[in-house]
Amino acid sequence: MDWGKEAARRLAEIATCSAPGPGVTRFPFTAEHRAAQALITGWMGRAGLEVHLDAAGTLVGRREGPAGARTLLIGSHQDSVRGGGAYDGIMGIALACLALERLGDRDLPNAVEVLAFADEEGVRFPTALMGPRALAGTFDPGVLDRCDADGVSLREALAGFGGDPGAVAGLKRDPARALGYLELHIEQGPVLERAGQPVGVVSSICGIERNALTFRGETGHAGTVPMEARRDALVAASGLISTLPGVAADWPGLRATVGEMHLHPNVANAIPEEVRLVLEIRAERDADRGACAARCQELAEARARAAGCEVSFERSYEQPAVACDPELVSVLRRAAGEGVPILPSGATHDASAMADLCPMAMLFLRCRGGLSHRPEEFASPEDMGVAIEVLARAIAEM
Amino acid sequence: MDWGKEAARRLAEIATCSAPGPGVTRFPFTAEHRAAQALITGWMGRAGLEVHLDAAGTLVGRREGPAGARTLLIGSHQDSVRGGGAYDGIMGIALACLALERLGDRDLPNAVEVLAFADEEGVRFPTALMGPRALAGTFDPGVLDRCDADGVSLREALAGFGGDPGAVAGLKRDPARALGYLELHIEQGPVLERAGQPVGVVSSICGIERNALTFRGETGHAGTVPMEARRDALVAASGLISTLPGVAADWPGLRATVGEMHLHPNVANAIPEEVRLVLEIRAERDADRGACAARCQELAEARARAAGCEVSFERSYEQPAVACDPELVSVLRRAAGEGVPILPSGATHDASAMADLCPMAMLFLRCRGGLSHRPEEFASPEDMGVAIEVLARAIAEM
Repeated sequence: MDWGKEAARRLAEIATCSAPGPGVTRFPFTAEHRAAQALITGWMGRAGLEVHLDAAGTLVGRREGPAGARTLLIGSHQDSVRGGGAYDGIMGIALACLALERLGDRDLPNAVEVLAFADEEGVRFPTALMGPRALAGTFDPGVLDRCDADGVSLREALAGFGGDPGAVAGLKRDPARALGYLELHIEQGPVLERAGQPVGVVSSICGIERNALTFRGETGHAGTVPMEARRDALVAASGLISTLPGVAADWPGLRATVGEMHLHPNVANAIPEEVRLVLEIRAERDADRGACAARCQELAEARARAAGCEVSFERSYEQPAVACDPELVSVLRRAAGEGVPILPSGATHDASAMADLCPMAMLFLRCRGGLSHRPEEFASPEDMGVAIEVLARAIAEM
Repeated sequence: MDWGKEAARRLAEIATCSAPGPGVTRFPFTAEHRAAQALITGWMGRAGLEVHLDAAGTLVGRREGPAGARTLLIGSHQDSVRGGGAYDGIMGIALACLALERLGDRDLPNAVEVLAFADEEGVRFPTALMGPRALAGTFDPGVLDRCDADGVSLREALAGFGGDPGAVAGLKRDPARALGYLELHIEQGPVLERAGQPVGVVSSICGIERNALTFRGETGHAGTVPMEARRDALVAASGLISTLPGVAADWPGLRATVGEMHLHPNVANAIPEEVRLVLEIRAERDADRGACAARCQELAEARARAAGCEVSFERSYEQPAVACDPELVSVLRRAAGEGVPILPSGATHDASAMADLCPMAMLFLRCRGGLSHRPEEFASPEDMGVAIEVLARAIAEM
């Protein structure tokens, strides 16, 4: 059996469980999710797993281990963004099933569970990671009342899908029984491709913060207000943005991005009065992130002053960095062999939430052009074959 | 009679000819325009003018002069932007009527016409300046078929108001019979207020160009793409915008503005792939404007290259500068007295189009805070009194 090719075949098949439109659109607790669940149930069955849907909508496939053995958890998410690709999330589930199928009925040192989480992307409901948070005991039942764009609450959607909103809190696992959590995922960035490597071991999941900045100046006619009398909010904001790459370079690996910006009044012949923007900073070390944010705030204030403007700088979101477990990282490094790259994850994953339950680690797969969240998303059958091999070795050796 | 107070009284009265909402909203060929026209007709009558509506919807008030004398034209526009002020445009009409009323039946050296143009702001229809263009013979009849937001064509609106679309082309005046065109207008900028002067004489109407720039990079996840692998279109665009004030300073009086900008995809966790913006440049000297545009294009290309992006730079609109007539400028300077400031107009006016017919000049009035196109727009009764005096002197001496 060519395991990589089989992975590609399964992923192509499950990619058809999608709402209409380009790429894959598979939101949690929809008809597409239900169709995908039927296929995943089949994959789990072929891997010798016993399958059930838990109260939070996570499809769980379990294989018992020796008496008294702890459980190795392996998972990822079934959902996609709108118009996303065929690999993000779902590939981690497919490869976990194939690694166990490849190991066959060989004795394993631990019990193993494959977890197919319902919702990691958080696109349908204004929340995400319900599945892993329930297992880790960090689930906030208040989010069950949040609604999607059609006014359907998460509670209703989950119950309609066969979950049990009232029982989600009871899913909390005993940390003493969880050996660890592994997740395979496409890198969603260009590092492995540039390094010419099929897989890499994740060192940590970067911390994230978002800062909401509002630059306030004064509007006026673009023809009648002399340059020296202006308080142009866009000139002030641009002064910060244009220097961001240079600022970020002071902390290797840190990423600072202004992706979203709104001008007012945003007409060609009026000086911009107000510019709102989101400055996102991600770093492996929370201290680096904090230092960069402080530097950006100073710079924003200096640029605002120089342009006769004011600026407010407010942290609107923060998620600390989570280090991967050194022992699990060692297991993956040994399984992947000499010279496997070690890299941070700039994106959040189910593993971020699972870290609250038990040690975790991740294996990244090279993806073409570093592209993700798009129909063009692609990981090769060969690379998936390598990843299945690495994961099977890690499971067997753990 | 306190002429300045009378001007304020009349402007407050005509400000009620407005669509609902803050400030003044008076679009051409509407019920508000019709109500304003009734008041203006009264102002013209009290100034001893014979009134008619021309085919282009311009209300014309005429006072004959000595046999064979040419005609001095004085005008401005009755319309406003949405939520505009009580002075922009309409004040020039009010002050012209009051200057003539003040001169009474005193013999004047020329025939005089006050022109109340229907549409200078161009807010209702995607065109403007029909009235002065008709007189100058530069009117393009094709614009009659352009429609407002409700699908009403300019042709229908004009005909419904009592104009005659088919006769607009025939309004062209004989340049040999037009002595010149004068226009009084609020400055719409802070120069006179800063100089502590009630009025100023305009040297020229700046040329304008708009350039459509599109910076193209590559999007990607803000967490997973390392800084050194990015092609961030917003970083490139910001590099240009932040340096604009410094660049513009090389040409005194030139104004360079980015007022409008659009990001794609414009979400917090995605690197901006495309930034479209409008760079507007205004200058008294067309050569300065051209040189600044060339410098901006070089800079845009350099910043794009530095960020791994591409940029296109296309001039989407151009209007050359128009110098005010030196003789008319001298007349206004003499009438205004020693030390009157001379300043360019950064904004377009009816005078821009009238320059194609005959010599033109403008008198600017100080406005509070340099504000215009807003409900807070304000010129004081005292300053309007000064302007009426200056205009009356100029009319009598010409």
